[in-house]
Amino acid sequence: MIKIAIMGYGTIGSGVAEVLQVNRESIARRSGEEIEVKYILDLRDFPGEAVQDKIVHDYRMIVNDPEVRIVVETMGGVEPAYTFVRAMLEAGKHVTTSNKALVAARGAELIALAKEKNVNFMFEASVGGGIPIIRSLNSCLTADEIEEITGIVNGTTNYMMTRMCEEGLEFDDVLKDAQAKGYAEKDPTADIEGYDACRKIAILTSLVCGQQVDFEDIHTEGITAITSADIRYAAKMGRSIKLLASSRKTKDGFAAMVAPFLLPPKHPLHNVNDVFNAIFVHGNVLGDAMFYGSGAGKLPTASAVAADIVEIARHLDVNIAVEWSTKKQRLVDFGQIENRYFVRTTVEKETIRKVFGNVSFVSVEGFKEECGFITEVMCEAEYEKKARELGNVLQMIRVA
Amino acid sequence: MIKIAIMGYGTIGSGVAEVLQVNRESIARRSGEEIEVKYILDLRDFPGEAVQDKIVHDYRMIVNDPEVRIVVETMGGVEPAYTFVRAMLEAGKHVTTSNKALVAARGAELIALAKEKNVNFMFEASVGGGIPIIRSLNSCLTADEIEEITGIVNGTTNYMMTRMCEEGLEFDDVLKDAQAKGYAEKDPTADIEGYDACRKIAILTSLVCGQQVDFEDIHTEGITAITSADIRYAAKMGRSIKLLASSRKTKDGFAAMVAPFLLPPKHPLHNVNDVFNAIFVHGNVLGDAMFYGSGAGKLPTASAVAADIVEIARHLDVNIAVEWSTKKQRLVDFGQIENRYFVRTTVEKETIRKVFGNVSFVSVEGFKEECGFITEVMCEAEYEKKARELGNVLQMIRVA
Repeated sequence: MIKIAIMGYGTIGSGVAEVLQVNRESIARRSGEEIEVKYILDLRDFPGEAVQDKIVHDYRMIVNDPEVRIVVETMGGVEPAYTFVRAMLEAGKHVTTSNKALVAARGAELIALAKEKNVNFMFEASVGGGIPIIRSLNSCLTADEIEEITGIVNGTTNYMMTRMCEEGLEFDDVLKDAQAKGYAEKDPTADIEGYDACRKIAILTSLVCGQQVDFEDIHTEGITAITSADIRYAAKMGRSIKLLASSRKTKDGFAAMVAPFLLPPKHPLHNVNDVFNAIFVHGNVLGDAMFYGSGAGKLPTASAVAADIVEIARHLDVNIAVEWSTKKQRLVDFGQIENRYFVRTTVEKETIRKVFGNVSFVSVEGFKEECGFITEVMCEAEYEKKARELGNVLQMIRVA
Repeated sequence: MIKIAIMGYGTIGSGVAEVLQVNRESIARRSGEEIEVKYILDLRDFPGEAVQDKIVHDYRMIVNDPEVRIVVETMGGVEPAYTFVRAMLEAGKHVTTSNKALVAARGAELIALAKEKNVNFMFEASVGGGIPIIRSLNSCLTADEIEEITGIVNGTTNYMMTRMCEEGLEFDDVLKDAQAKGYAEKDPTADIEGYDACRKIAILTSLVCGQQVDFEDIHTEGITAITSADIRYAAKMGRSIKLLASSRKTKDGFAAMVAPFLLPPKHPLHNVNDVFNAIFVHGNVLGDAMFYGSGAGKLPTASAVAADIVEIARHLDVNIAVEWSTKKQRLVDFGQIENRYFVRTTVEKETIRKVFGNVSFVSVEGFKEECGFITEVMCEAEYEKKARELGNVLQMIRVA
């Protein structure tokens, strides 16, 4: 019997308890021992509920109980999660977390501490929900140099972009619908501004390069500026628009960014719709690979946390190496990142060609005063310069 | 420094040596030690080539050298690979293999032997080439009951079906093209008759249920009967045709089969084209997930073998648990497996409806004498009975 504690009994935390119950038998078989939840740390008391007896309000109850071998952190946010997790690792307990904010901010440090204490700090559920991308990078694609990792890693915005693309709806209406369905939070800022995706690509890039990537260094744009007009242009070109979090290895380091992109039908992420997530990886010997699944939601995310518990149970006395040092990884300056750009403008075609060369034009019925075109590959700084020269850019969306 | 041996210096074996060389530094960092190829077992001598000094012809040279910790088996076929691998495990050496025939036939036994000797027997490259599906089942999706696993696991036939679907070509022409491109072997039987896919789904099903699934028990149909006429019907219905290897959990055990299926555009495997492979998984808490990538080819497959080497290097003194016992798993009798069926026939519509109920008909220009329809869900035995009653079935393809 392995005793565990769950810190934070919200959606994910209660989901973990549920998964451990529903698949109790197979999880015990795979872990080699039964898993029992001894404590649940929460501010609430849950009177009358089955978990009532396990509730504690002071994390030190868990720290000081040597019976607890594994601690699940599903509180979210950097503090007090960081303080609690550090204390657990210091006390020689293994930790698994679904908390991307914590992992992005303190991952390298907590990995090092876990190694020092010969325990494990796992975070499969912090990116891609139920998609096993973390363990794949850490234990499967280990013979490769990963040259690109690009993902649809935020289910809320992918649901919204899917509805906008499929039904031609406007951003505000889709947001209301997503909120009504529980896919978007009351304050949707972290999702729609790309902050959530930014933390996730910071984590993935750190794992790919083995060093610390600070999310604050990653240029991030959300989907709030995308309109039904853009969607109509995209449809005319046979493309979809997706919020991508991307990291590419260049000779100057990793080029990482979060922004909406136009995707051609042949792109592996083109058909990833609704709340699904997918992560595309290109390795120097593996070639292209993609991982697809439920990127969020109570049970898929809890499934990933519970799989971490099984993996820890199989490695109670072994620290599994994770390559992610505290040494800071240099990122390519945003201005030097290369992309192609789709531009909508009211400027005359002759002027457009003077500035951007011999581009092809796209026009959409009902938008007579303007046209669209896709540029050649150029760096962000060069695009900016040309865009200023052109004047009157109605919209710019990068092209994958 | 960890010394290894490679048994079989063909496409995959030489690919492994290449990957270990190309990514020498990162593989050493992740393994914790440098990996050095000490022996290469092959019937040939490779005079003048760099590997000449490492060539041995007697596997006992490797068995008897205690310096060799890890042995790579890329010979293919059950014998003599089985004898050699057994001897290596008996001698306390770890083994990784890309050999699906060996794993399907003797996997459970070799896993048990490895456990007994406290070493590891790994086989990531035996299914899905570079796609990390084995480790995902074994170490990632461990909190789930996997209720379905369905894959496009043979690149040769997927390339052929893609060309047939995209260009309306006939089977024989596409086969010649695939052979000319090196995608199909001179004797293509194992691929086009589905035998290769059958071994792979036997391996995947064994891992999912934790018991031995004998490939001989799995109903297997290839793609040889698919014609350009079928493709035209598929196109009319907006569907693709793919060779699927599938296993579904039912109340009576696992229902496994290999056969061509019609896939609707929304199916996660619909857009998996060319030589790519993809494996769809449904878990009871995870929901849907999919893994996509290069299912074959020298470097992608070698990447998976080399990743096994890294994983073994990290677990030199630890046997990683693999749930796959020698106890035989009962499969659902083929006649009891439920599917929907697309049927082409010259029988009159009235008679069709008498036998199959109120189905909708599909007709394709140029095929005036016949029509197509899709049945309701029924078991194979019931379909067989009705098909005999109908008489004159030109073609039957199952519907996913």
